[in-house]
Formats: sequence, C-alpha cells, structure tokens
Amino acid sequence: MHDELLTNPRADRVRAVRSLTGRAVRRRAGTFLVEGPQAVREAVAPGGPRVHDLYLTPEAADRYPEIVAAARSRGVPVRPGSPDVLDAMSPDAQGLVAVVDQVHADLGDVLTSRPRLVAVLAHVRDPGNAGTVLRAADAAGAGAVVLTASSVDVHNPKAVRSTAGSLFHLPVVTGHELPEVVVALRAAGLQVLAADGGGVHDLDDLLDVAGAAPPGVPDLAVPTAWVFGNEAWGLRDEDLALVDAAVRVPLRGRAESLNLATAAAVCLYASGRAQR
Amino acid sequence: MHDELLTNPRADRVRAVRSLTGRAVRRRAGTFLVEGPQAVREAVAPGGPRVHDLYLTPEAADRYPEIVAAARSRGVPVRPGSPDVLDAMSPDAQGLVAVVDQVHADLGDVLTSRPRLVAVLAHVRDPGNAGTVLRAADAAGAGAVVLTASSVDVHNPKAVRSTAGSLFHLPVVTGHELPEVVVALRAAGLQVLAADGGGVHDLDDLLDVAGAAPPGVPDLAVPTAWVFGNEAWGLRDEDLALVDAAVRVPLRGRAESLNLATAAAVCLYASGRAQR
Repeated sequence: MHDELLTNPRADRVRAVRSLTGRAVRRRAGTFLVEGPQAVREAVAPGGPRVHDLYLTPEAADRYPEIVAAARSRGVPVRPGSPDVLDAMSPDAQGLVAVVDQVHADLGDVLTSRPRLVAVLAHVRDPGNAGTVLRAADAAGAGAVVLTASSVDVHNPKAVRSTAGSLFHLPVVTGHELPEVVVALRAAGLQVLAADGGGVHDLDDLLDVAGAAPPGVPDLAVPTAWVFGNEAWGLRDEDLALVDAAVRVPLRGRAESLNLATAAAVCLYASGRAQR
Repeated sequence: MHDELLTNPRADRVRAVRSLTGRAVRRRAGTFLVEGPQAVREAVAPGGPRVHDLYLTPEAADRYPEIVAAARSRGVPVRPGSPDVLDAMSPDAQGLVAVVDQVHADLGDVLTSRPRLVAVLAHVRDPGNAGTVLRAADAAGAGAVVLTASSVDVHNPKAVRSTAGSLFHLPVVTGHELPEVVVALRAAGLQVLAADGGGVHDLDDLLDVAGAAPPGVPDLAVPTAWVFGNEAWGLRDEDLALVDAAVRVPLRGRAESLNLATAAAVCLYASGRAQR
C-alpha cells in the first residue's frame, strides 16, 4: 500500500472526498466519485480518465488485487482506509472509491469521428434515467452521448452508478444548448430524430422501410441522432421544431406513455438494428 | 364531501392508511395505496378495482372534480383531509390517496383468454424495476404480467408509481413458483423464452426470421411468454432449464449487460413487432 491506513472518518481528506457528492463542489474540483468494484475497475483500466486517488479497505485490496495492480501501473496513489472511512466517503462505496477527472468530450472532436448513432438527452433531470439511457446507448452501439446544459450532471453518483461503467465506454458531451447541438449534428451528416409520443412517424413503420425509405420518411439505416426529452414533460414545441422528424414508439396496450429510458432503449435498438 | 374534514395527522385512521406502505400490513389487509391524480383516476374509473376510500385535500377536490365524480358514481366514500393529513398518509400523495383492493388475477383465468404476449418477472426484487417492466409490457401489448412468488410485491408504493397506471390495465398474476408458471404457459400454447445475456439466440437474428423461423429456432411471431430474471444475477441454470430457449439482446458497444427494464422493453417490443 502507498500510505498509512486512514482510520478517522471525520478527517479533512474524508470530508473532501464525500463533498464530491455535491454538484457545485464537483464543478469546482473538476472531479467526481467512482464507487464500487465494477466502476472503479473501468476507471483505472488502461486508457481511462485521470484517477487522482484510489481509496479502499484492506479487505477490498485483498479481494480485487487486479484493481490495485492496474491503479499502481498507471501511477495512481492507492490509499488504504478503514471500513468506517470508506463508508463515510460514500455509503455506496462497497469498499472502493476513486476520485476521477470528469469526462467532458468536445462536441467537435466527437463529430469528427463521424459517429453513426448518437443519443441526445435534453432537459433530462433524473440522474438514474440519464445513467440508464447512457448504458442503453452504449449497448445499442452509439458512438457518443450528448447531455444538454439543462440536463442533470452525469457525474452525479446515482447517474454514475446507473451507467454501470458505460460512462467510460463512449464520449460524453455536456454543456451545450440543444439548438447548437442539432446544428453540429446535422453538419456532421446525421439526421436528427426526436422521440415523442405525438410524433408523426411510427417507429415500427420506419423499421419496415429502413434502407429504402420513400421521400419525406426518415430512413433508420442512415447515421442518426436521437433526441430524448424530460421524463415528465418530454420535448417542447421549440425543441421539436429543431429536428428533422418526430417519431413515436407504438403504444399497443393501454399505457399512455413510456418511461424515458424504456423509450430511449427501444429507439436506439431500432437504429442499431437498421444500421446492421 | 362525504364527511368532516380530517385534520389530525396522528389519528388512527391516518396511521392505518400509512401502514399500508408495509408489505406485511398490505398482505393482511388485502389492500394497497394508490397515490397521486394519475393513478387514482385509473383506480376509480369504471371497471376498476374495489376502492375502499378516497382521501383528498379540498384543493385536490377542486382541481380534479372528475375524480371525485367518478368515485361517487361508484359509491366510493370521498373523505376530505387537510394537506397535513394527506402528507402523513403518504409523502407522494400529491393531495390524493385511495385505499384499493389488491390486484391478483388467477393464472388459469388469464390463460383461458389466450394472451399472445406475457411478461414473467422471476426473482425481480426492485419495486421500480418491476413497475417499469409492467408499464413496458402494457405498452408493448402484453396480455398479462406474472410475478413469481420470490419477486417484489407489485403493490409496493414505488412499484405502483412506476407502473404509471398500467397496474390497472392488464391482469397481474402473483404468488406462483416459476416451474408451475412455465408449465401453465406452455399448456396455453405459448412458447417460453428467457432473456439472458448468455442466450444462444440473438434477438435481432430472431426478428430477421420471424414468421418463417427454421426448425430449432424460436419464432417471435407465435404467442410468446418472456421470462426476465433478477436485476443483479439474472436467471439461474435451473430457471433456464425450464424454458424453450434463451435469447440475448445484442450488445453492440462495450456495455457488459443491460438494465433489466431496458432489456425487457427491447424483448417485448421485438415480440410486439413480430406479432403485428
């Protein structure tokens, strides 16, 4: 181990780590908390983000020697702490917490790589929803995720947990307003579709004609960015006015709407399938 | 209004309503809490479950006169309470709470109606996940949802909220073990598929051949029950041994798995599409 065992849950260092659960502190520090073995393993992997410190209990160090080795090989300080200290840093630590540089990809850089599938979260406020959509976007093969300025901070601990590691798998762009994002996406050759319960086009109808869509009908086989709106009120008229077309996920039963993450997964998987 | 305004948040009646947030109390009472205008509206609609009492603030009564009228037309006692009383009954009441008979459909009765799409939740423990899958099943056109005996109580307040009203849209069967459920589903003419990350069949490949699947390959166009497992550990070998085939949702990016509700939505929508 790199250091003496930390045993005081009220120490300044412990408080400083815990304070990263707050958005304002995270923004100032430019870092965030990565908790638990699965996510920490991804953070310390080769090519991962800068890791400032890895805190873990002696038990976790014994149980996950490969995480300790990966951290050391990248020069990350490995700091042992008592279970009390780790619990004080984060109730969801499961014995391991890393302090990691925030992930902020540059919109222009990301679009230079010509992604064929992009998920855009506009005004998404619930951290669990944002993280779950990011995980689904990764699974469906998206090349990037964009969260607009009015969306939740993806470095929120609950958002990070909900991504199940996908936060480190694909570039995440934040801080732009939707109009600017849509212009950039279109300039990079992507059609921009909105997922909207009142959309003119039915997703299943679009899948039927993918690769051979008639004029005026979006073709799911071409590079596509999907815009998903707020969990309660969706997209506003001014948002819908920006996109190329609004698409509805069919509702076959008596449900009035779909959960945001569910709708996003169905749309992203439809595009992934059409682009095979 | 039916009664005097309830103003004491510590009254026995208030405590009795609040105690329905606990599973053991719900089981004994055979009732559960329905909170907020959207869900209460569905509960008091014609053909809905038996509603024992509707509690609401005078403000909610003014704002939702159609809910009060629907309750009265079904003979439901409408009991006004102060905001303090409603908050004490449930922090998520938003001014309205109904005490409603639990929904328990009979497995045999449900299968007699020959549903073409059924969602089975086996060992699902998180109430939010269970409710979200139920809502997705409704949207995808499922004819029933089955929760095995080891799954979360669908009458848990968080589960009820996550269904967004779908709990009242389709029959929900509870209390049976998975082997018994699978036998009954098969006897009713449904193929039984498990959603499993290690499944032999790729969901997109099955969609490609739906309606004309070769021997040994499940046909998504025929009546189908999907079995979804625990959010952390999925389905056990003994569960997988019961089903006709295990199917994996393709993972195109670097995600190692999908969130349970996401995977369920993608599978159920694939069946809904193939059965059009």
